[in-house]
Amino acid sequence: MTQVEKTNPSQPRKASDVQQWDLETDVAIVGFGGAGGCAAIEAADAGSDVTIFELASASGGSTALSSAEIYMGGSGGTRVQQACGFEDTTEDMIAYMMMSAGPQADEAKIRNYCENSTGHFKWLVDLGVPFRDSFHEQRAIMCLTDDGLLYTGNEKAYPFAQQAKPCPRGHNLQVKGDNGGPLFMKIVTENVEKREAISVEYEVRALTLIVDDSGAVVGIVVRKNQQELNVRARQGVILCAGGFVMNREMIDKYAPMLTHGNVPIGNPGDTGTGIQMGMSVGGAAINMHEGFISLPYYPPASMTSGILINDKGQRFINEDVYHGRMGAYLLAQQSERFYYVLTVEQYGDYERVSFMGAQVAGTGETVEELEEELGLRTGTLQQTIALYNEDCEAGEDTLQHKAPQWLEKLEPPIVALDVTPGRGAIMPYFTLGGLDTLPTGEVVNPQRKSIPGLYAAGRTACGVVRCAAGYNSGMSVGDATFSGRMAGRAVAAAQRNKL
Amino acid sequence: MTQVEKTNPSQPRKASDVQQWDLETDVAIVGFGGAGGCAAIEAADAGSDVTIFELASASGGSTALSSAEIYMGGSGGTRVQQACGFEDTTEDMIAYMMMSAGPQADEAKIRNYCENSTGHFKWLVDLGVPFRDSFHEQRAIMCLTDDGLLYTGNEKAYPFAQQAKPCPRGHNLQVKGDNGGPLFMKIVTENVEKREAISVEYEVRALTLIVDDSGAVVGIVVRKNQQELNVRARQGVILCAGGFVMNREMIDKYAPMLTHGNVPIGNPGDTGTGIQMGMSVGGAAINMHEGFISLPYYPPASMTSGILINDKGQRFINEDVYHGRMGAYLLAQQSERFYYVLTVEQYGDYERVSFMGAQVAGTGETVEELEEELGLRTGTLQQTIALYNEDCEAGEDTLQHKAPQWLEKLEPPIVALDVTPGRGAIMPYFTLGGLDTLPTGEVVNPQRKSIPGLYAAGRTACGVVRCAAGYNSGMSVGDATFSGRMAGRAVAAAQRNKL
Repeated sequence: MTQVEKTNPSQPRKASDVQQWDLETDVAIVGFGGAGGCAAIEAADAGSDVTIFELASASGGSTALSSAEIYMGGSGGTRVQQACGFEDTTEDMIAYMMMSAGPQADEAKIRNYCENSTGHFKWLVDLGVPFRDSFHEQRAIMCLTDDGLLYTGNEKAYPFAQQAKPCPRGHNLQVKGDNGGPLFMKIVTENVEKREAISVEYEVRALTLIVDDSGAVVGIVVRKNQQELNVRARQGVILCAGGFVMNREMIDKYAPMLTHGNVPIGNPGDTGTGIQMGMSVGGAAINMHEGFISLPYYPPASMTSGILINDKGQRFINEDVYHGRMGAYLLAQQSERFYYVLTVEQYGDYERVSFMGAQVAGTGETVEELEEELGLRTGTLQQTIALYNEDCEAGEDTLQHKAPQWLEKLEPPIVALDVTPGRGAIMPYFTLGGLDTLPTGEVVNPQRKSIPGLYAAGRTACGVVRCAAGYNSGMSVGDATFSGRMAGRAVAAAQRNKL
Repeated sequence: MTQVEKTNPSQPRKASDVQQWDLETDVAIVGFGGAGGCAAIEAADAGSDVTIFELASASGGSTALSSAEIYMGGSGGTRVQQACGFEDTTEDMIAYMMMSAGPQADEAKIRNYCENSTGHFKWLVDLGVPFRDSFHEQRAIMCLTDDGLLYTGNEKAYPFAQQAKPCPRGHNLQVKGDNGGPLFMKIVTENVEKREAISVEYEVRALTLIVDDSGAVVGIVVRKNQQELNVRARQGVILCAGGFVMNREMIDKYAPMLTHGNVPIGNPGDTGTGIQMGMSVGGAAINMHEGFISLPYYPPASMTSGILINDKGQRFINEDVYHGRMGAYLLAQQSERFYYVLTVEQYGDYERVSFMGAQVAGTGETVEELEEELGLRTGTLQQTIALYNEDCEAGEDTLQHKAPQWLEKLEPPIVALDVTPGRGAIMPYFTLGGLDTLPTGEVVNPQRKSIPGLYAAGRTACGVVRCAAGYNSGMSVGDATFSGRMAGRAVAAAQRNKL
């Protein structure tokens, strides 16, 4: 107990209190998910000795749990984009990602990400990550085929499409089913293992940072086999320890909106210790209130032709947006109930491949009947559907601007699914806040001054995606792998503590 | 220039670097607004020597710019509440303030505020603050009469009224017109001046905190007559330096939503230096993304009978809510335009006493005509008003739950005011984030451990109100004065550095 208290991630250890260095390395990396693995490879390839400390018994982190889509493009397009006939531009990608990040966007970080994105694609391919040169046409939350490219966000939806030329940027590994994450981490792990400069210590818990008198991070305390070890990191420490979605106390404190969700997306290690360690030495944690919380209402893609309504019978968002955006707008309504209304025919598809888990709240041979069954004010749903159907006939959604391809009249019999938070519908959630970093991965204090020797990447940092209403699939693993590389490269260039 | 850089609020000075103490006091207070003044009085009355450092040439701060309504009640009611026939309970006040604070509520702070609120009323009365035992019936943003009590928030509005028994808690000073703030600060200043234990230094800028080797705050560097002075604070420093609404860089970084507003509410000193000083010694700044941004659409109170619509012709909030809540819901809509629709008769009142500054966007001899003039989808506004008028006749707003007293049919001729952000309507804004503090005013780090010697109050701290959708008039000055007192009392009890 005393031991644990002494090594709270919130209290750094002073280098002057270190009796002996039990282990020395150039670069210490906390966490072996996508960010940590890519950081290690870059640092090693730049000539540094690296030690990764991983809490679990194997590599993987949340990246391995994901479908590992990777958001990439710009600069004329990746090989896959070009092969599929898409000519992406960096400016379109920047414009789109700036909109997606919301008003709190970090433009320098987004520019760096987009300008180096086709380079990141090549780097991944060189590692051995396979992408097929094929385009997945169908709308999907994740790609269950081995196609290499798909739309994974709001690119074709209002108001994004009106301001940045749509281009698919979700790159999917060449693997059947939802197995991109395990394959991706297998490849990264093999690349780590074949580099002699990298050591991996599994089942080791990072406890707290070690700082010298100037405030620079010079090492880390870890626990291995019940023993505390003082690890000297000559060039720096990279925190790649995930987010805080598994830490209920932190969620309650920083991002209480997320408690509307019911499926935390992350691995058990996502307890926020990386963020806490960074804060303990003066690192700024930013955007901590923001989180992704979604309503995964497709597939089947045909669901997109249905409508989402509140308890006033009103639509309030174009239903062809990414599910995270739908969740964000849903939670911003003053409404006690939410329904997803679709035809019985569309519901047939839903029963086969539902991702949403929502229960039927009512059915109707007529709209009026459904309206009554849901207890909606007489005339409201009837009006909403009458206008929607008129718009479908005319081919333009005049109110919510859903793209014409999804405009199919809602002809009874119709069904309403209950998508109210807390009533059965699946609402995955994860955090979007973390340590503020420069594009290099350097952790900064509230004045954006770097803390010497400290870097962060992946979900431990606040990355390119900052706002639930603009999150896209592929941006998490995209950001984790890219930011990991940036940090690995920067730390290797730091010679400061090297004897 | 070098001087200024050396004394950036973001970099504390080490006590070991202090050559000499130019000034010594028990308690140093930064800022002489409502929080600083009340903190000084409490600390002095508890036996401490106090020095207040104020940037301006006079006391006042943002409190003097406000109408100085003070949110108080609970415990059977204040003298004014009782005289006006309202029997308030602490539990109702807590329930209401918890809802108002939103999911990020600090329950300990709210409980302390509510349980001691009638005591706070008595303390203010003992200072000489005059409150008339009269109730102002009319709906108002601020009370322009000298009545002592009014409803200042969402107490009677859905969904608050359904969950906490409504009671008016806005206490207004006995003074004509919007002059509560100047009178309040005059009284506080007189009370400060008559206490020999308090010195006030005007035109003195607080530059940065001074910390000892253990991390405790032991003083503050100030600039007076172009000279830097090292001030030793034997018991502690209280930061009452306001918020950051005047610091565009901080707004862009932390609360970019506020840039939709066009009237910053605060004084020129609200540049966030108090928050920055607190962060520089490890204090946690919380809730920094949240800000109040409002649409002050009443008075005239008759405006409440109008309806607020988005560009789909939909209502989305009950129009009897406090204007800050209306602003919060307005900004959460996906809509390019917003209109406030009212009858020409109601508009007559508006022309006389408008607080909103909105321009007429259209008029109609019929609803259809207005709908067309606004470019709304045919049938949308017609349906909205038809349902609204039906509900008015039946006396129940079935959709948005506006209270029956405001349900007046919208009979043409009707008018629409353009209340889209950026198109003329007045949208005041201010920040709600700040240093995390205990109910005592102690500034805490991210792990909620107190930083010895450092306290914060008023807008420099994150107070009882945390969310734009729940803010009420009277909560700012209520929180500033109460939290100032708590900090003054706590610092006086701290004997740590007293020789």
